[in-house]
Amino acid sequence: MFDKILYPTDFSRNADKCLAFVQRLREAGTREVVLLHVLDGRGFELLSALDSDTTAHTVEENMTKSSLEKLNEIAQELKNNGLAVKIRLEKGVPFSEILKVAEEEDVSAIIVGSHGKSNLTEVLLGSVSEKVIRKSKRTVLVVKR
Amino acid sequence: MFDKILYPTDFSRNADKCLAFVQRLREAGTREVVLLHVLDGRGFELLSALDSDTTAHTVEENMTKSSLEKLNEIAQELKNNGLAVKIRLEKGVPFSEILKVAEEEDVSAIIVGSHGKSNLTEVLLGSVSEKVIRKSKRTVLVVKR
Repeated sequence: MFDKILYPTDFSRNADKCLAFVQRLREAGTREVVLLHVLDGRGFELLSALDSDTTAHTVEENMTKSSLEKLNEIAQELKNNGLAVKIRLEKGVPFSEILKVAEEEDVSAIIVGSHGKSNLTEVLLGSVSEKVIRKSKRTVLVVKR
Repeated sequence: MFDKILYPTDFSRNADKCLAFVQRLREAGTREVVLLHVLDGRGFELLSALDSDTTAHTVEENMTKSSLEKLNEIAQELKNNGLAVKIRLEKGVPFSEILKVAEEEDVSAIIVGSHGKSNLTEVLLGSVSEKVIRKSKRTVLVVKR
């Protein structure tokens, strides 16, 4: 029932906490993890407006590259624990992309971090988690710190 | 990691959906289910104020009896699936009692239904689920309809 899991990460501390949890999911029968990072498309639009399209493109290229590196590192850690991993890097509005990928990949559950409050990143992650919990058609696992 | 699970039920359709999910948790390694129902203490207080202490006591006795019957029925279904079951019937504010029992029983996760919207009971359940998700120190599994 937890065969194929969607693990969206924003590379924050809160998402790292989820990683420790995901690592253990093999015990619960998980075989495959879809590892997802969403580049927030709204950030690039803002950058185009504030600076230039060229700057926005450069930043997007750099962020794509560094995100793929980070995703590959996490994927390797999961593979070391015997999990099959599929990497997805999407651009868009984070919660929408998470829900879209959950349907596309037909996952049995989505892992999200709990609503943190200690800094802005975590408040934002909390907000993404909350939208995923509310709108997902699939089981959501809310991992606590 | 899903060894001991807290399954709070308000006997609603939404909670029944969770039951089907809980039945399958053996696949994920669950061995014991703490089955909880909370009698909303605020209802009895209201009844005492509107009618009399005697009426409130009678209603509470009847509800306790029928709740225990329902809990025993559900427990039997779970036992038939090879799960160990512990029944808890508490009186108080539902989300607080759920969190309290989760700590007391040291469960690995709490199962809650998703936020329904089709009728009042489900809106209320949604609200209980949301408080549990926000305030729990433990992993929460949000089951969708």
